[in-house]
Amino acid sequence: MDISKRDLLHEGKAKRVYATDQDGLYIQVFKDSATAFDGIKKATIEGKGTINCRVSSKMFTYLEERGIKTHFVELLNNNEMVIRGVKIIPVEVVVRNIAAGSMVKRLGFEENRVLPFAIVEFYLKNDDLHDPLVNDDHILAQGYATEDEIAHLRDQARKINTYLQEFFEAIGINIVDFKLEFGRLPDGSIILADEISPDTCRLWDRETGKKLDKDRFRFDLGDVEGAYQEILNRTGAGN
Amino acid sequence: MDISKRDLLHEGKAKRVYATDQDGLYIQVFKDSATAFDGIKKATIEGKGTINCRVSSKMFTYLEERGIKTHFVELLNNNEMVIRGVKIIPVEVVVRNIAAGSMVKRLGFEENRVLPFAIVEFYLKNDDLHDPLVNDDHILAQGYATEDEIAHLRDQARKINTYLQEFFEAIGINIVDFKLEFGRLPDGSIILADEISPDTCRLWDRETGKKLDKDRFRFDLGDVEGAYQEILNRTGAGN
Repeated sequence: MDISKRDLLHEGKAKRVYATDQDGLYIQVFKDSATAFDGIKKATIEGKGTINCRVSSKMFTYLEERGIKTHFVELLNNNEMVIRGVKIIPVEVVVRNIAAGSMVKRLGFEENRVLPFAIVEFYLKNDDLHDPLVNDDHILAQGYATEDEIAHLRDQARKINTYLQEFFEAIGINIVDFKLEFGRLPDGSIILADEISPDTCRLWDRETGKKLDKDRFRFDLGDVEGAYQEILNRTGAGN
Repeated sequence: MDISKRDLLHEGKAKRVYATDQDGLYIQVFKDSATAFDGIKKATIEGKGTINCRVSSKMFTYLEERGIKTHFVELLNNNEMVIRGVKIIPVEVVVRNIAAGSMVKRLGFEENRVLPFAIVEFYLKNDDLHDPLVNDDHILAQGYATEDEIAHLRDQARKINTYLQEFFEAIGINIVDFKLEFGRLPDGSIILADEISPDTCRLWDRETGKKLDKDRFRFDLGDVEGAYQEILNRTGAGN
């Protein structure tokens, strides 16, 4: 695609978004920098930008083929993708298949427990408040989404989970949990946005249980780059 | 009623429950002791046991007259009531009409904002975990209640809110928010349990905004006993 970057519109912890010379299209750039625990822990993970950009492109393409609408347009180069412009809904949607992380620490679920069904959670996307868990009433009362839109988010999250489970199972990986963000197109319709990568998913090797995701960075498990590289290789996103 | 206390079955922060010589009936004793902030702050509020017992009796009777099933049987004496035996569901149900407390601190709602509708929240009843907010999926996955039971809890909470708003409005008080607990009878049916008192409700004078509830104790606002006494008087529960 013949497209040129214009102004930097938004810089997040792991990505930058630029305006372009094409109407309704933007460029999302994936950075090597990593943060954890509300930005308290910071580092650079060599090659992460490229891997997350390529893995996300692969996953968005895979989901689009199954009828999930996403903001992905095309991979531009190693760490840049063209996306459609959406207004992000400030609610992070988390899907969990196995109990880990805050579900264990905050709610007392037994660690590594396979959940009886995929649990969907909504978190406020708000660093100052440390992304608190919210329920449907909170989202409605704050006007972040309507009742129908909340039902749509939940439905999309469950469908995406089914597809991602299929995909990762086939390459020997359990997708333990993951975080999604959705946004609204100018016509109001809601599509999947942000990224799907080892930064936003917990991915465990099905045989060894080895963590192949950002938890290696969070908890100093070592071989962070190796884990990201393995996800790139197994997903086939590097080709 | 001719009923005699037997073994102490449960001692909580504000109440004790005793077995009795009557099948299926128990005695709930209201204590003067008060705790706040997960039990870090402790004190005695003179007369609280009596006031909370009498106010709860009044509110349970009022709700029963409107078709809400409760564990209340009768007032036995100043600080003791006869109740039906239930197995408490370990989920605290909170209803909010005006933003205050954790809704402001945790979720960033504007303080004192009149909410567009009554917000219902579920919290895990678990001191070790500091009573975390949970959603329907968490309750289902932990087996604390079925989908139908969760819908019933929410429906009962909203009905109770409507009745309590009517009651308190008539005596010049805004019921800002309140906490309910429900329990299961031996036949599995779910009824309202615990208490409804200045310990479990935020009650503000409609004219002056004066807090007439446990927040006076929590935040050292002074005249704690006077506020509880005023609720006893205005509700007519002392007669």
